[in-house]
Amino acid sequence: MRVQQMIATHPQVPGRPLDVLVACIETCLDAAQAATACADACLAEPAVAELTHCIRFNLDCADLCKATALLASRRAGENDTVLRRLIKACAEACRVAADECSLHGETMEHCRLCAAACRDGQAACLEAAAMMTTPTLQ
Amino acid sequence: MRVQQMIATHPQVPGRPLDVLVACIETCLDAAQAATACADACLAEPAVAELTHCIRFNLDCADLCKATALLASRRAGENDTVLRRLIKACAEACRVAADECSLHGETMEHCRLCAAACRDGQAACLEAAAMMTTPTLQ
Amino acid sequence: MRVQQMIATHPQVPGRPLDVLVACIETCLDAAQAATACADACLAEPAVAELTHCIRFNLDCADLCKATALLASRRAGENDTVLRRLIKACAEACRVAADECSLHGETMEHCRLCAAACRDGQAACLEAAAMMTTPTLQ
Amino acid sequence: MRVQQMIATHPQVPGRPLDVLVACIETCLDAAQAATACADACLAEPAVAELTHCIRFNLDCADLCKATALLASRRAGENDTVLRRLIKACAEACRVAADECSLHGETMEHCRLCAAACRDGQAACLEAAAMMTTPTLQ
Repeated sequence: MRVQQMIATHPQVPGRPLDVLVACIETCLDAAQAATACADACLAEPAVAELTHCIRFNLDCADLCKATALLASRRAGENDTVLRRLIKACAEACRVAADECSLHGETMEHCRLCAAACRDGQAACLEAAAMMTTPTLQ
Repeated sequence: MRVQQMIATHPQVPGRPLDVLVACIETCLDAAQAATACADACLAEPAVAELTHCIRFNLDCADLCKATALLASRRAGENDTVLRRLIKACAEACRVAADECSLHGETMEHCRLCAAACRDGQAACLEAAAMMTTPTLQ
Repeated sequence: MRVQQMIATHPQVPGRPLDVLVACIETCLDAAQAATACADACLAEPAVAELTHCIRFNLDCADLCKATALLASRRAGENDTVLRRLIKACAEACRVAADECSLHGETMEHCRLCAAACRDGQAACLEAAAMMTTPTLQ
Repeated sequence: MRVQQMIATHPQVPGRPLDVLVACIETCLDAAQAATACADACLAEPAVAELTHCIRFNLDCADLCKATALLASRRAGENDTVLRRLIKACAEACRVAADECSLHGETMEHCRLCAAACRDGQAACLEAAAMMTTPTLQ
């Protein structure tokens, strides 16, 4: 992916550590894809009736990760309060999906992989949110 | 729109006042469309160089409103903390877009209309968020 | 919704019959919400194992309807081939979801409502696509 | 990204060459991010008034790429006609964005990078669409 380069070539790059933001975008895109694919794989499992929470939480997670990756890719005009709140919602959506997927990770490989992708998304979002709440960056 | 009916026919409808949720979904869809169209109309204005903040905030608002309307349409399995956080981020995105659009509302009709749509979205989101933070509903 | 007004106030409105485009946007937003809610309602049904196709087709339909409503809301710079192809993909996604939902419409009210919303979306998309393929409008 | 693994662990994997689909998903996610970031970078350029087509085409491209990556990630229940049409719309959106970005690639690095991402997306979509139209796979 070209995330690092795309962010670096923006004419209005504030003085923030870019790596944290780039990691947030990349892991959110990965988690969005993993959660979408995992929800669909759960739908195809014989035990789908036991996976409905997993499907629902994956869909929420995918929607939040998608929105977060795209908002975090915009830097023209600061919109920090909105982005920070979204990132926190996204971190929570990743946590909920990862927790649920973890319950089925031993028997379903797609849930194991998805849980890992969501954990990465959650960690990157928490780091980005922490960076955005430090006084000098607001 | 069929929002009220769709929500009412869900097999797992918790005991919440549905009207608040329905209003949140409907106003968010309207604001998402208005903000998308207004961003594009701003792009077509001769004074586009003075409207870049308006465009950016509209795009963020549209992304948040879209995500909020869809997450709020899901009721299978509670995911309240995620939804509440998203609704709050969306309320803020609506506020920011409405404030910016209001600055150009006298000269540009699309900004005046969009500001009104975003104010409605903000109000409905704040009401939905308030409902979700009352102890009996968590 | 303010779709008609938002489209009408755009500074670059080509000479097309606006009503067809407005109907396409409005019915797509309605179908996107209905399909999202119906997929989730299906997830909450005891017979979820028999509804997996319905859920999947609803999710595809919702994604296409969302994208179509937003692209059709942009008029700055013509991008007609892209929009026309998307509208045709959306019409097909609406048809597939409506066909599947119709199979369960007698026993599940959310499927009956969703089928109607998707049929409206399909019809509006087909009309918009037909308008866009007439020679004078390309 | 975990795209290859996620697709491979799905319980209903048809006998298609997976590499083509995986490449389509990955390049679409990359192009969606690049086009979102490039649209925003264009907004921040002093010459924004000359970049309005670039912004508009990038936004369309981002919306299509996002939808394509997610639909292509679902394999439960075949929905091939919808996916094939969407992929073709996406290939065209990538082409249009790449053509426009190429015009500014010498002076703006974000446009040069975005054009490359969109070309990759276009190529991967065309290859996926070709695969889906071969008789044995329909």
